[in-house]
Amino acid sequence: MTKMKVNPWEVEGSVDYEKLTKKFGTTKIPDSIYKELQDCHPLLRRGIYFSHRDFDKWLKAHEEGKKVSVITGRGPSEKMHIGHLVPFLVAKSLQDKFGCDVYIPISDDEKFFIKKNLTFEESIKYSEDNILDLIALGFDPKKTFIFEDFVYTDIYKYAAQISKRITYSMAKAIFGLTPEKNIGWSFYPAMQAAHILFPQFHSKKHISVVPVAIDQDPFIRLTRDIASQKDIALTKPAALHAKFLPSLHGEAKMSSSGTGLIFLSDDAKTVKKKINKYAFSGGQKTTEEHREKGGNTEVDVSFQYLRMLFEESDEKLEEIKTKYESGELLTGELKAILIEKISAFLKDHQKRKQEAKKNIDKFILKN
Amino acid sequence: MTKMKVNPWEVEGSVDYEKLTKKFGTTKIPDSIYKELQDCHPLLRRGIYFSHRDFDKWLKAHEEGKKVSVITGRGPSEKMHIGHLVPFLVAKSLQDKFGCDVYIPISDDEKFFIKKNLTFEESIKYSEDNILDLIALGFDPKKTFIFEDFVYTDIYKYAAQISKRITYSMAKAIFGLTPEKNIGWSFYPAMQAAHILFPQFHSKKHISVVPVAIDQDPFIRLTRDIASQKDIALTKPAALHAKFLPSLHGEAKMSSSGTGLIFLSDDAKTVKKKINKYAFSGGQKTTEEHREKGGNTEVDVSFQYLRMLFEESDEKLEEIKTKYESGELLTGELKAILIEKISAFLKDHQKRKQEAKKNIDKFILKN
Repeated sequence: MTKMKVNPWEVEGSVDYEKLTKKFGTTKIPDSIYKELQDCHPLLRRGIYFSHRDFDKWLKAHEEGKKVSVITGRGPSEKMHIGHLVPFLVAKSLQDKFGCDVYIPISDDEKFFIKKNLTFEESIKYSEDNILDLIALGFDPKKTFIFEDFVYTDIYKYAAQISKRITYSMAKAIFGLTPEKNIGWSFYPAMQAAHILFPQFHSKKHISVVPVAIDQDPFIRLTRDIASQKDIALTKPAALHAKFLPSLHGEAKMSSSGTGLIFLSDDAKTVKKKINKYAFSGGQKTTEEHREKGGNTEVDVSFQYLRMLFEESDEKLEEIKTKYESGELLTGELKAILIEKISAFLKDHQKRKQEAKKNIDKFILKN
Repeated sequence: MTKMKVNPWEVEGSVDYEKLTKKFGTTKIPDSIYKELQDCHPLLRRGIYFSHRDFDKWLKAHEEGKKVSVITGRGPSEKMHIGHLVPFLVAKSLQDKFGCDVYIPISDDEKFFIKKNLTFEESIKYSEDNILDLIALGFDPKKTFIFEDFVYTDIYKYAAQISKRITYSMAKAIFGLTPEKNIGWSFYPAMQAAHILFPQFHSKKHISVVPVAIDQDPFIRLTRDIASQKDIALTKPAALHAKFLPSLHGEAKMSSSGTGLIFLSDDAKTVKKKINKYAFSGGQKTTEEHREKGGNTEVDVSFQYLRMLFEESDEKLEEIKTKYESGELLTGELKAILIEKISAFLKDHQKRKQEAKKNIDKFILKN
């Protein structure tokens, strides 16, 4: 078995989340917080978000009538897949429940710096497409601020102020920089910290929460350190840390390419084909064996997708679990449930994405 | 004698300019070019600008009716001194003679990154003050574009495109970076190249010339290399290289602090005191010896200032030279000529700086 390796630019081996909270010094989300999130998105109430920093303070601030916000960003890519939606579904759910502002930085510059063959024009084009996917999730236009680094260039002013507090040595350690990487890439850690602190630059000093996958916590820690420095003097952002959404093949973390992904632009036929062909099954080798021993929902990707994203009802999910583990429900039947759910979601999503074109200006921050 | 050391961040020892053109691979300005500049500012016609890259192409483009421009920038400081004016006087003179656009980037970010205790607010405040000093030189508001990195933040878009072509290794070699320096500083080489190429981003592809002190040529070379890369595909900027303006003490290059500087805000009394007290003299120790042997105009700082900046008339300068070298003119008398010239210039300048406040908006580029 490959040894676990989790840092902001690599995830290898089988992930021990318990160990990671200890390694990164974060706090497991206690039952008292889960209780407050019980009517939120499945990602929040079913333990996929499992760790946090200062989210208790965020909840308390909200309770006291103080301003709170959510910030989660995206490095635009050619097309978004389902895994990309995770933090945005959480942001939307927190906005619905707590009525808070959501800030969405689009780091077209990051992708441009990192991807050798990506042109400036392409990175901007991908931003525009991805922004429509995000708007399609149903954010409140009065409370949602989307900004692209190559459009809302005023972000440079904030990144510059932060960059003075990050040495190349620090950035190298946290971001895996090497001297052969370009200097845009070297600067990007400051841009990312500026994104995380932007709600406080844009509005006023307040606590903002960042939903991220646990491997990104070192960036949060760096940003929290900077926030508290005397010249910046902002509130340390809170964080909610997620486990990884597995690829169809069952790998711990989705990569952005390969056959293990369902894209937001996929049609029902493609979804059916991909899930039937690739979705890693926790079922037994033969129907007879499955009827006898039952399936393993812990490793079954279709079940995980239902649990994390697509089966809203706890009762129905429990029913599926019981039936699958008892052998009553076959892998093909489980996959059929997921296929129907995803296809319906994507059909709606694609329609909402078309409609989003009309509303894009309501969301975009300009200099 | 200290060994000559000239690179973009240090100048030590006695400077051998002949050797520098060889080291940097630049071209000495030939008489044919000086002939075309004979009615320009003394800095251009008296050999203080002594070396170039492609300035012949710039002149030819202008002759053919093509667009040409000048770009020269400033990292704002608490207050400007006379040495800071050199490239701007040249830019103004080229604008007067050739009717060309002048671009003036104000790198408030650079100073902010480099100076440990300079705050963001101070760097912006210094920009505003320095911009008034530049406008006071009499640039044509219709043909002059001043832009500050922290105000015209769209410059980040261009710097980002350039940064992809500069590795940290390259930047380290050319800019003397170390891992302890902040990542804003690491990024700044891209910003500087963006400044130099900005006339072509702002208008259209054309040849622009950068007047710089010779020690800055490595930046020009880097920018020329980038300009010609296929994704950027701009015209290589031309350059005009100056010798250093000596400090009052006669050091090869002025530092930005100490007693060897005359500030643009100095009054007549201060100018008189500084020149009488500090200006390094090429005269003899006693009046008798001076009358007998004469003074050395090569090392006399007052004479150099007259030659480089303050004595417009070639005849008068020649007369002063002859009289000083023959011993007819004493050091005190030579200093008195300079004091009068500088005081008159500064009195006018300070008045024009006040008037510039009314016109500042005509010059400033906004996002």
